[in-house]
Amino acid sequence: MGVMAKPESFDRTDVIEKVTKVFWTKGYNGTSMQDIVDATGLNRSSIYNSFGDKHSLYLDTLKHYKKQTQSASLASVINKTPKLAIRSLFDSVLTDVDAKQGEIGCYITNCTAELSNMDKTTADFLADNLDDMIDMFTNLIEAGKQTGEFKSDLDSKATALYLFTNLQGLKLTGMLVKSKEQISAVIDKVLGDL
Amino acid sequence: MGVMAKPESFDRTDVIEKVTKVFWTKGYNGTSMQDIVDATGLNRSSIYNSFGDKHSLYLDTLKHYKKQTQSASLASVINKTPKLAIRSLFDSVLTDVDAKQGEIGCYITNCTAELSNMDKTTADFLADNLDDMIDMFTNLIEAGKQTGEFKSDLDSKATALYLFTNLQGLKLTGMLVKSKEQISAVIDKVLGDL
Repeated sequence: MGVMAKPESFDRTDVIEKVTKVFWTKGYNGTSMQDIVDATGLNRSSIYNSFGDKHSLYLDTLKHYKKQTQSASLASVINKTPKLAIRSLFDSVLTDVDAKQGEIGCYITNCTAELSNMDKTTADFLADNLDDMIDMFTNLIEAGKQTGEFKSDLDSKATALYLFTNLQGLKLTGMLVKSKEQISAVIDKVLGDL
Repeated sequence: MGVMAKPESFDRTDVIEKVTKVFWTKGYNGTSMQDIVDATGLNRSSIYNSFGDKHSLYLDTLKHYKKQTQSASLASVINKTPKLAIRSLFDSVLTDVDAKQGEIGCYITNCTAELSNMDKTTADFLADNLDDMIDMFTNLIEAGKQTGEFKSDLDSKATALYLFTNLQGLKLTGMLVKSKEQISAVIDKVLGDL
């Protein structure tokens, strides 16, 4: 009887999440295929066969992270008015102040900072993510204008980009300023004018 | 007569600027000593003898970049009122919209995004840079309150952190949004409330 190859058995999501931690800590450029082998316990050929090369694996992690944070965002805004929904999206930054090394900031924000060395596929992912975020904020602002929570003459699209900019900035500031009080004051200022 | 070792001759600033471009494009983690050898044309032992290891070279590039941007900032605000000085610091983001690949965003902002994998010395540099920026904004706001350009009840320190956050955010947004008009609208909104 011949030796039968043992079928690979692993949980795809589990592998993606392990690889996300490596990219998050080391950055895309700083991560080697060996780091990925070490983190997942899979051999190179399993990784190539199931996920493709380092770059396609990176895109998988970005898409997975985006899906996870979108679900979390949605869960946090349920049953909230548009204004409180926007606030809860901003308040998520406060958790960064306490976060441990290696999982701070935002995986997608960090990817943006590495953008100058990124290829078109990654740049397209970031552009799509920007569009999605702008659409989400625009919709929330439009809804708040309907309910009277926001001023009716607010420029929804321009305000959405202002909110996106502040959220990006706060993700970086939140890594540097270890005071929830100071970060909260910035959030209050940003949301106070809507 | 014995062979005399040829003395190394190179311009320190020139080397630092070449190395900055490499770190900027590839990130700290993605840059190897070989990349530095290739970019500078110096051999490894010259680099180690004159600059130390990759990490101390990185700190040199950060300090040099900071000095350069501080000089440029100073030059751009001379003869301006505090309010116009702050605006000119923000308008520098608009140049990113046109910037070519490999030199976009802010070298120090990108360093912050890599922070989760950084050591204490680099974290200290970033904390000092934050303090300097907050002090600069605080001083400009205080000056503007004296001249009546800014509201006298403005909280200078909190507003300084708000401005820093927006400047960081705009450096990232400026990489993604390729419209000067949209970026300008965000800057107008940020500065309009002071």
